[in-house]
Amino acid sequence: MGGDGYLGWPTAMSFAAKGHQVCVVDNYLRRQMAIETRSEALIPTPNLHDRAKIFESASGYKMEVKIGDCADYRFFSNLFKEFAPDAVVHYAEQPSAPYSMINFDAAHLTLNNNLNTTFNLIWAVKEFNPNCHIIKLGTMGEYGTPNIDIEEGWLEVEHKGRKHKFLYPRQAGSLYHTTKVLDTDLLWFYVRAYGIQVTDLMQGPVYGIATEEADIDDRLVPNFHYDDIFGTLINRFLVQAVAGIPLTVYGKGGQTRGYLNLKDTIRCVEIAMSNPPGKGQLRIFNQFTELFSVNEMADKVKRVGANLGLDVLVRSIENPRKEPENHYYNVVNSGLKDLGLNPNLLTDEVLEGMLRRVIMHKDRISTDKILPRVSWNK
Amino acid sequence: MGGDGYLGWPTAMSFAAKGHQVCVVDNYLRRQMAIETRSEALIPTPNLHDRAKIFESASGYKMEVKIGDCADYRFFSNLFKEFAPDAVVHYAEQPSAPYSMINFDAAHLTLNNNLNTTFNLIWAVKEFNPNCHIIKLGTMGEYGTPNIDIEEGWLEVEHKGRKHKFLYPRQAGSLYHTTKVLDTDLLWFYVRAYGIQVTDLMQGPVYGIATEEADIDDRLVPNFHYDDIFGTLINRFLVQAVAGIPLTVYGKGGQTRGYLNLKDTIRCVEIAMSNPPGKGQLRIFNQFTELFSVNEMADKVKRVGANLGLDVLVRSIENPRKEPENHYYNVVNSGLKDLGLNPNLLTDEVLEGMLRRVIMHKDRISTDKILPRVSWNK
Repeated sequence: MGGDGYLGWPTAMSFAAKGHQVCVVDNYLRRQMAIETRSEALIPTPNLHDRAKIFESASGYKMEVKIGDCADYRFFSNLFKEFAPDAVVHYAEQPSAPYSMINFDAAHLTLNNNLNTTFNLIWAVKEFNPNCHIIKLGTMGEYGTPNIDIEEGWLEVEHKGRKHKFLYPRQAGSLYHTTKVLDTDLLWFYVRAYGIQVTDLMQGPVYGIATEEADIDDRLVPNFHYDDIFGTLINRFLVQAVAGIPLTVYGKGGQTRGYLNLKDTIRCVEIAMSNPPGKGQLRIFNQFTELFSVNEMADKVKRVGANLGLDVLVRSIENPRKEPENHYYNVVNSGLKDLGLNPNLLTDEVLEGMLRRVIMHKDRISTDKILPRVSWNK
Repeated sequence: MGGDGYLGWPTAMSFAAKGHQVCVVDNYLRRQMAIETRSEALIPTPNLHDRAKIFESASGYKMEVKIGDCADYRFFSNLFKEFAPDAVVHYAEQPSAPYSMINFDAAHLTLNNNLNTTFNLIWAVKEFNPNCHIIKLGTMGEYGTPNIDIEEGWLEVEHKGRKHKFLYPRQAGSLYHTTKVLDTDLLWFYVRAYGIQVTDLMQGPVYGIATEEADIDDRLVPNFHYDDIFGTLINRFLVQAVAGIPLTVYGKGGQTRGYLNLKDTIRCVEIAMSNPPGKGQLRIFNQFTELFSVNEMADKVKRVGANLGLDVLVRSIENPRKEPENHYYNVVNSGLKDLGLNPNLLTDEVLEGMLRRVIMHKDRISTDKILPRVSWNK
């Protein structure tokens, strides 16, 4: 679900290449939102049918492509019955925090799309295959930045001499992240009510466009957004470095997050799929490999840019978001490593590879879509 | 919002009688669901326009009536702009746990109606009057029955030598109750993002049909549902006692909840409105006055029934819900008392008054709609 997305597409290729029968479904919602907000990706990507054909000719691996809206139960439940999946990877959500904060309509779309894709998946599983394993992409952003350690999904609380293990309390910093909190609440309820099995992957920001399959043909590249709305911090910094404009740090730059390489996202999903949690279980993993603050990331890009002869400046600007800019952040992420994840770290070589890729498409950069166009304070 | 409901209607009358300018809005969703599920109320209630007219002739107090869907932003935001309320009491939700568990369609309606009425209210306040006080009816059911004390909305957690105050972790026992958890998450996010002011009233099951204004004229009575879907435990027991069929206890009957009198609901809303929390605050009260287990409630009805010459039997049946039937339950509810709530307790006289009212309508009882028709296990 969400097979046209930055994560969905390379995940689909990887599973197909490992011999799985794969069906990708997408309604091109992100493409539509990107056009509406003038946030097109840096590198053009063919549509899903075309990408699947290119992938098939290049690699010999087939996948099914279905275009439709997972928030529409008639469409989605028919597809679910027909394809009869053993597992579903659910990426079909509006993924941008700034988009979710634009105005009523964008917020309304985010809330209703994200909740109903999750809801429909839960119901299709309940009605047509209760043994199907739901692999749901959550986000580390659900936890926010509490002043205590962030455990892996659950928190054993001792209070007035008694104990209870709760779902780790969540408090997110955007409506998008809040919809993921609502997803978790929904999944947790239905796991208890109907005994479905769910893995919730609490993922940090992902970087990278190289994967084993994406590297076969340039036209198989995952979406690379660098704008303020769909672009991640790293992508924005890389493009700013190449365009010769200062890297823009929001506020003090102490905001710390857990990052991971796109290759590791795919590996984590694979680990989850190969080790299902069992019926009636909600299993939660914190999915990231390294912590960096915004300032640390800016320093990295500056240093690696210099190696390529780029003169990279860094500039702090007013933070358009409401978020702590210096905070405690100590997070457990042992679950996936215990199951075999060997992290691909954010080395200078990895950053340099991404910078070189951006340089190849330098003429397509629009510098007027990188600075914040959406504010939390309006 | 939800002015036609069991709580909405008497709340509206009470505020009108205290000199407030009141507008009630409802789309008759509950009436529609009650007809669909053969769960009509015991005592007929005129439609909202007619009730408002009857109330006006009997008391001299006017109120505005608007029929429409609060989950429709065009309708709701226009009404909000036109009436320009200083405070909104939000009861406009699908309120039945069993209804929310019937099937996909009922669950879909519950999720989308409840989330979108709350979402629309938040946005109308943000866009048209950020000083408006939102008084939101939550439910004690959001907390579930954890093994530690339930605090009033928040929990200070000490973990590995550090502390953080979280929204008290919630885990509800039905999709209906889960939608209230999602509401809380949404409200808490938007309080932090946009500085709106919200009181969340975590209410237990309410009993009683007598209020100062409802007692003026029989046709002003609040809805009295006694079926398995919209009826509360007390109402089902009262009707079973009058109909001469055994009171049906679900499972072991140790399920303990915090109850309150309808008069106290109205008083709590009034207390909240007279003492707004201030901008940027989410204030949470646990709204109940007494704890009873199902077995204790059965004993009460049996005893009071006997005083009226009714031979009341009690019978345990298989629990259609998934819930602990014996559990720890210690709950703080000091906030509203500190602000002046003097509880109306569930005395034998109060129960007797309700029983007498049911006896007056004995011929309208359908005994085939009291036993559980919805199971959590299907």
